[in-house]
Amino acid sequence: MQVPEKAYYGVQALRARNNFHITGRPLHTEFIRNLVRIKKAAAMTNMAAHVLDESIGGAIIKACDEIISGKLHQAFIVDAIQGGAGTSANMNANEVIANRAIEILGGRKGDYSIVHPNDHVNMAQSTNDVIPCAGKLTMMGLLPRLIEELERLQKAFSDKAVEFDDVVKMGRTQLQDAVPIRLGQSFEAYANVVGRDISRLKGLKKDLRALNIGATAVGTAINVNPVYLFQIIKNINLICGTDCYQADDLFDATQNLDCFVHVSGALKTCASSLSKICNDLRLLSSGPHAGLGEINLPPKQNGSSIMPGKINPVIPEVVSQVAFNVIGNDVTVTMAAEAGQLELNAFEPVIFYKIFESIDTLGGAVTTLIDNCVLGITANRERCRRLVESSSALATALCPSLGYKLSAEIAKKALSTGTPVRQIVLEEGLMTQEQLDRCLNLKDMTQPGHLVEYRKIGAGKKEKTE
Amino acid sequence: MQVPEKAYYGVQALRARNNFHITGRPLHTEFIRNLVRIKKAAAMTNMAAHVLDESIGGAIIKACDEIISGKLHQAFIVDAIQGGAGTSANMNANEVIANRAIEILGGRKGDYSIVHPNDHVNMAQSTNDVIPCAGKLTMMGLLPRLIEELERLQKAFSDKAVEFDDVVKMGRTQLQDAVPIRLGQSFEAYANVVGRDISRLKGLKKDLRALNIGATAVGTAINVNPVYLFQIIKNINLICGTDCYQADDLFDATQNLDCFVHVSGALKTCASSLSKICNDLRLLSSGPHAGLGEINLPPKQNGSSIMPGKINPVIPEVVSQVAFNVIGNDVTVTMAAEAGQLELNAFEPVIFYKIFESIDTLGGAVTTLIDNCVLGITANRERCRRLVESSSALATALCPSLGYKLSAEIAKKALSTGTPVRQIVLEEGLMTQEQLDRCLNLKDMTQPGHLVEYRKIGAGKKEKTE
Amino acid sequence: MQVPEKAYYGVQALRARNNFHITGRPLHTEFIRNLVRIKKAAAMTNMAAHVLDESIGGAIIKACDEIISGKLHQAFIVDAIQGGAGTSANMNANEVIANRAIEILGGRKGDYSIVHPNDHVNMAQSTNDVIPCAGKLTMMGLLPRLIEELERLQKAFSDKAVEFDDVVKMGRTQLQDAVPIRLGQSFEAYANVVGRDISRLKGLKKDLRALNIGATAVGTAINVNPVYLFQIIKNINLICGTDCYQADDLFDATQNLDCFVHVSGALKTCASSLSKICNDLRLLSSGPHAGLGEINLPPKQNGSSIMPGKINPVIPEVVSQVAFNVIGNDVTVTMAAEAGQLELNAFEPVIFYKIFESIDTLGGAVTTLIDNCVLGITANRERCRRLVESSSALATALCPSLGYKLSAEIAKKALSTGTPVRQIVLEEGLMTQEQLDRCLNLKDMTQPGHLVEYRKIGAGKKEKTE
Amino acid sequence: MQVPEKAYYGVQALRARNNFHITGRPLHTEFIRNLVRIKKAAAMTNMAAHVLDESIGGAIIKACDEIISGKLHQAFIVDAIQGGAGTSANMNANEVIANRAIEILGGRKGDYSIVHPNDHVNMAQSTNDVIPCAGKLTMMGLLPRLIEELERLQKAFSDKAVEFDDVVKMGRTQLQDAVPIRLGQSFEAYANVVGRDISRLKGLKKDLRALNIGATAVGTAINVNPVYLFQIIKNINLICGTDCYQADDLFDATQNLDCFVHVSGALKTCASSLSKICNDLRLLSSGPHAGLGEINLPPKQNGSSIMPGKINPVIPEVVSQVAFNVIGNDVTVTMAAEAGQLELNAFEPVIFYKIFESIDTLGGAVTTLIDNCVLGITANRERCRRLVESSSALATALCPSLGYKLSAEIAKKALSTGTPVRQIVLEEGLMTQEQLDRCLNLKDMTQPGHLVEYRKIGAGKKEKTE
Repeated sequence: MQVPEKAYYGVQALRARNNFHITGRPLHTEFIRNLVRIKKAAAMTNMAAHVLDESIGGAIIKACDEIISGKLHQAFIVDAIQGGAGTSANMNANEVIANRAIEILGGRKGDYSIVHPNDHVNMAQSTNDVIPCAGKLTMMGLLPRLIEELERLQKAFSDKAVEFDDVVKMGRTQLQDAVPIRLGQSFEAYANVVGRDISRLKGLKKDLRALNIGATAVGTAINVNPVYLFQIIKNINLICGTDCYQADDLFDATQNLDCFVHVSGALKTCASSLSKICNDLRLLSSGPHAGLGEINLPPKQNGSSIMPGKINPVIPEVVSQVAFNVIGNDVTVTMAAEAGQLELNAFEPVIFYKIFESIDTLGGAVTTLIDNCVLGITANRERCRRLVESSSALATALCPSLGYKLSAEIAKKALSTGTPVRQIVLEEGLMTQEQLDRCLNLKDMTQPGHLVEYRKIGAGKKEKTE
Repeated sequence: MQVPEKAYYGVQALRARNNFHITGRPLHTEFIRNLVRIKKAAAMTNMAAHVLDESIGGAIIKACDEIISGKLHQAFIVDAIQGGAGTSANMNANEVIANRAIEILGGRKGDYSIVHPNDHVNMAQSTNDVIPCAGKLTMMGLLPRLIEELERLQKAFSDKAVEFDDVVKMGRTQLQDAVPIRLGQSFEAYANVVGRDISRLKGLKKDLRALNIGATAVGTAINVNPVYLFQIIKNINLICGTDCYQADDLFDATQNLDCFVHVSGALKTCASSLSKICNDLRLLSSGPHAGLGEINLPPKQNGSSIMPGKINPVIPEVVSQVAFNVIGNDVTVTMAAEAGQLELNAFEPVIFYKIFESIDTLGGAVTTLIDNCVLGITANRERCRRLVESSSALATALCPSLGYKLSAEIAKKALSTGTPVRQIVLEEGLMTQEQLDRCLNLKDMTQPGHLVEYRKIGAGKKEKTE
Repeated sequence: MQVPEKAYYGVQALRARNNFHITGRPLHTEFIRNLVRIKKAAAMTNMAAHVLDESIGGAIIKACDEIISGKLHQAFIVDAIQGGAGTSANMNANEVIANRAIEILGGRKGDYSIVHPNDHVNMAQSTNDVIPCAGKLTMMGLLPRLIEELERLQKAFSDKAVEFDDVVKMGRTQLQDAVPIRLGQSFEAYANVVGRDISRLKGLKKDLRALNIGATAVGTAINVNPVYLFQIIKNINLICGTDCYQADDLFDATQNLDCFVHVSGALKTCASSLSKICNDLRLLSSGPHAGLGEINLPPKQNGSSIMPGKINPVIPEVVSQVAFNVIGNDVTVTMAAEAGQLELNAFEPVIFYKIFESIDTLGGAVTTLIDNCVLGITANRERCRRLVESSSALATALCPSLGYKLSAEIAKKALSTGTPVRQIVLEEGLMTQEQLDRCLNLKDMTQPGHLVEYRKIGAGKKEKTE
Repeated sequence: MQVPEKAYYGVQALRARNNFHITGRPLHTEFIRNLVRIKKAAAMTNMAAHVLDESIGGAIIKACDEIISGKLHQAFIVDAIQGGAGTSANMNANEVIANRAIEILGGRKGDYSIVHPNDHVNMAQSTNDVIPCAGKLTMMGLLPRLIEELERLQKAFSDKAVEFDDVVKMGRTQLQDAVPIRLGQSFEAYANVVGRDISRLKGLKKDLRALNIGATAVGTAINVNPVYLFQIIKNINLICGTDCYQADDLFDATQNLDCFVHVSGALKTCASSLSKICNDLRLLSSGPHAGLGEINLPPKQNGSSIMPGKINPVIPEVVSQVAFNVIGNDVTVTMAAEAGQLELNAFEPVIFYKIFESIDTLGGAVTTLIDNCVLGITANRERCRRLVESSSALATALCPSLGYKLSAEIAKKALSTGTPVRQIVLEEGLMTQEQLDRCLNLKDMTQPGHLVEYRKIGAGKKEKTE
């Protein structure tokens, strides 16, 4: 197998590319960066331990810095999904760094007597420690953007909650008219569930910070210099700006991927929350005429190639699709983690591929949800009021005064005859006008803890109903 | 470990019960029956091969018949989910049959010198062939009830399609008003997707009919008399009323459970179809006042403990819950099938548990969907008509005559001003009254292939629009 | 519909039973208890608020106490999976309590003028608040048993880690011989991953403690007395022995079930960890002759109905099956949570059913894993030593001294010729006997940070290799 | 929003690109082709119906042909996952075709008075019919490559089955030594399960052939000329080389995506089968020294960056990762299909994205599995023989002669003492040498139906054993 002369990758990467034509997609660019940051940290540490020649080490670090700054990424030629627990990705990095370092030292690419991919670049490392570490660093790097966007989303919902605080509307349970709420309360609920998801995602850092670096092949730190073993983490933190620590049990940290199942699970929970919210937005904006029609989503594109004037809830729709994807990804991640055997789990590549995808696509979905949807939502105040005022569902508020059974009869009568609840109560002499006004005050109905007064008044009525 | 004197099970079953306190649920009663039917067939075949003593064989068959008729099921004490690929279930059956046969022959339970669970009852068999066969026979036994109910459901939808054929209403895509359809067309679509699911479920029999009986431990038919090997299938078919055949490759049929993944996949597809339909029923019946309100589901129970008069779509809701369960079960089945190793998949117990549950709960869900929901659905014809007639979405029908752009302008104007589409077209002189009547004939709009005439008329208009 | 005279349930429960023939399983007994504890707390609170008559309230409390103590559970007749967000379960409880309270007060069952299921027992409550609260309380009640068992499992693994600390064996990555480890290190890794799962499960309480009690239908606390609204939580904590608090946002807490997705996700993560461990136990004990054969699982039952003397890893197998089930359940829970609409998620029954099943079956699986497997595991020390000593994989330890390339050549030679690595190194004069002894000390190889000395010695060799 | 002057896409595509930054991946190139083939067919049909001007139609067809031949694909700028049921993809195609057609007619891009994206290119079409049709055509186009590769795999396994037909080895159930089989039988089993998967995948065409073309928005064929409605399918078949037919119920075919759930389910079943096989290959090749070591996978790349000489089963590993991905994708597809509402399922983009990925990655995985793994597998004949001959598991073959109980005792004795089964039987005088030779003939043991003779001989022994 012949490596092209100009190539920075080597024969190992080339073999891997030929073995794995799977997704057609390269490694995630942030993953490349973090893998190379670890290589840099390793070189620094090996130099400090006096086991790596200064000039070789210096060239390696220089090569790493170039890649970290965005260069040479096209020399990472292996498929994102690959066999071998990431050995191909690791060797691809080792080769590119070695070849670039050789050039820096004035040699010809491929002359590994100058800088050797395994002996120098990979010194004191194994695929089995650098790859999971690079994966964790990448997740720690990608999550903040998602979290920031979720915080923006939370704020957008909270702002809308204030804006819609006075919009009384019909609350619905099981899609059936229930009791009045205010539209602002709905949006505040959205803000709050997003807030919980943010907390869960922030909490992931705790798990991700434990690195198995120094474990090498299985956790015994074979071929690792003690200086390296104890100092590598410090250099990683320095270079990556992280506060990671070395896992207490390097065996456990090398073979068990529960951490990634946990990360994926939190992403899945968030996805599920967002999809529920987006389903609500689609329901509330359904119509415009023959649906609920309580809110309007901002029109962002023509809705139809055939139906003129149609505006569709495309933004919430894409969020739900991303959510379905994230939920499916979680199954993949879980299966891959479960399939680990003995001292290693060989299925990290697919795990990383899916988790990075979940984070990135959720981030993109949330961004468009905020900017192209939530910020522009308006309320149809008039319609909201009309629907709630004429509803037989108001009968619920009669229960404390009139009892469940009598209230149910009133509700049924209202529904079948179309007579408003209010009118029936008055006609049948069940309450006075004043009692009724207190009892059926829409705004009051939406405020917890409001109901002191009328219950006292209505108490005398209770006997009648039973 | 002491087996109670009265017990029909033996020490193997007892040990298994103690090892597996998992679900607290026994083996499916139909599974017990089919396992015992196989035991009966084996005894008959072994007798015919002259390797099983006639009196022992006769007693075994008598004991089997009792269990098949429903007796002694409480002696099957092992948990439905168990380790060991079903050995515990198989030994439980062997022991119960042996002990009952011993009694029949006048011996005392436990005196295996008379009838031995392994040497006589299990003769020429292995867990690894009888258990998958019993599983397949059980699925073949349970599926017809589900299929029958689905056929009833299909008919119920078709009948409703006829009943609602004249109810013109707003069709909705992406929950937004689209173009008119008839309610009957919606119900016909439900009937048709159910019909496809029926076909897929019926097709499963083809896969299930291939039995690995005679394979014994791994497919080599070790310890199997040739007479048995070639005749057992005939006796199974005789006893079970099936038309099964012996798998060509007994190794393959013993170790690969793709058949069950396929079965579960078809159940999952059906579940997904049913849940979509039920979501529609909930949407269409939403309200009664502040929702779509186009149909009414029959009230089957009070909807709320606090909201009097509220009726909820509880039947569609339970169907969706069952669907979610079946979809989750499919993941379990797939993982378990994937986890097979070498000559056997040891995870059949959980596969059977989940598939039996999927079939049974889907069946129950469909039954209540028909009897407590679909049959009693009524249409709100007046509301359907009102919603569609006043909609700006009718503008779509203008496109062939007026072009997309002009039609879109009309639609937007109609929506923003509340002026009907019809009126705008006339006021702006875009069509004559006659042209418009043809173009916006609601019933016609819902009938494919209707549109010949008005396009000719409208053809002259086209120039104007561009 | 006629309720039998002796029945404690009422017509609502009866209708629900007829509507929902789904799983054939009743509500979880702990769920019944917790639902009734809430009813008791509600009665106490309503009495304190002077809206519930003392004698009625007293009878309700007495009836509740009976049910909590285990009586009358057979009167809970509704299926575990039901439509209607749990209204049927709630009404079943209301009816049983009311009828028993009526009896206590000397009335005849069914005479709701004495105690009314809705007006008295359900006073100030809605299905939509009591049902999720009962679900959370039940999870808080069931989880500790699972956690305790996991702690026992962690200890069992740690104890074995000590016992096996001196058993040097071949470590394997990707099922290929890698480098030596000690068997104790493997078991310590199992202990540690279980420890993390324990932490995650303990952390769930934080989420579960937030109750939406007092929200009633949608979060507005409609029909709730302020006294009740603010005191109910105190009484729940008193009765249940919990430290729950009222959710800040009752709307959010009523409609969003992310909490349950999170709980199910943690259970799934735990399941995945356990299944990985159990796969390892099966691999390590494979054989006894033609497998890895490094450990022995205690024989708990005959492994085969046809293969005498065969012992199978039935306990690890059942654990993996439970894990597959829990992972499938997680998909169901996630879908059900995602499907919530507007002010309520109507799919709590299936969510509870699956989560309770996940907790209970995981608990049962862990118990049998400890008692019938881990505690009795023994090591085949001799075989472990033999396999590692004769392996070409030892060549890895040569790398720091001889470089990757030369070491690879030695490894390949060892593998193809069968000559031990040690002998090749000596024969080729690459190291002295003393250097080699240090370099290939098996015990040292398994101890991180050991390698200081020989690297210094070997340093001079490095030039030779390149 | 300003469209660049040189761009072939239009403002609708541009808006969509801005709305959906999700996966960063374009539409599948085959999907683009098939969508454009439909556009071409539509233009042809509309011309035949005399509703589309000949010169406009001609230019559209010419533009389509260019795209089909591979040009202008970079003008398809919308993200693969998008909201709106594919409207953005459809409009992107309409715009590119229109602009190119305008150019062909000598106009300037963007001058839609010459060729209009909606009125001309999209004439008689809706997103809701062309997009699902393009999806189905793409699946029909992609599946054959996968099927071909699976057929190659099946053949490769069959060839190996012949090659390994004489390799007697230990069969294992539940990873425990069971009874002898031949390695060829294992590979034949692999060939046969792959064969069933091929059948299932071939069967998908039946479902995929039903197109809803002509349905337009919801199934009513609104705005469709009758000539078009009845002739479009013929032209699609002509252009695509397919034998599709128009769905009987256009409503059903527009709103129900059970077909795609079915397709994804078959892919998932196949994935599960392949992963099981690959797990076996990894198990059988485990070692080389401290594992089963019965077969050798061809070394395709260095296995480790730290462990010299290590060869890992990277090809089977990548296949399992792809399988996990396909299984997760199936969950996504199922959820998306379940989420359809009323007249349309808006989630087709994610469904197509995942199914195309499943087909393509499975195809790539199978290719590398054949070429880089299966074809080069060799057997360790000597080791296979040694492991089986010395195993206590041979005792199973004694059962028909000596009974289960006595055979079990022999097996246990053999295991604990290390004395071969054969020797024990002779020493204890349980069989003559001749009887034993027949009974324990390894090759015979692996052949169904072999056992006639020795059972007759052994029959006399039976009494002794009980």
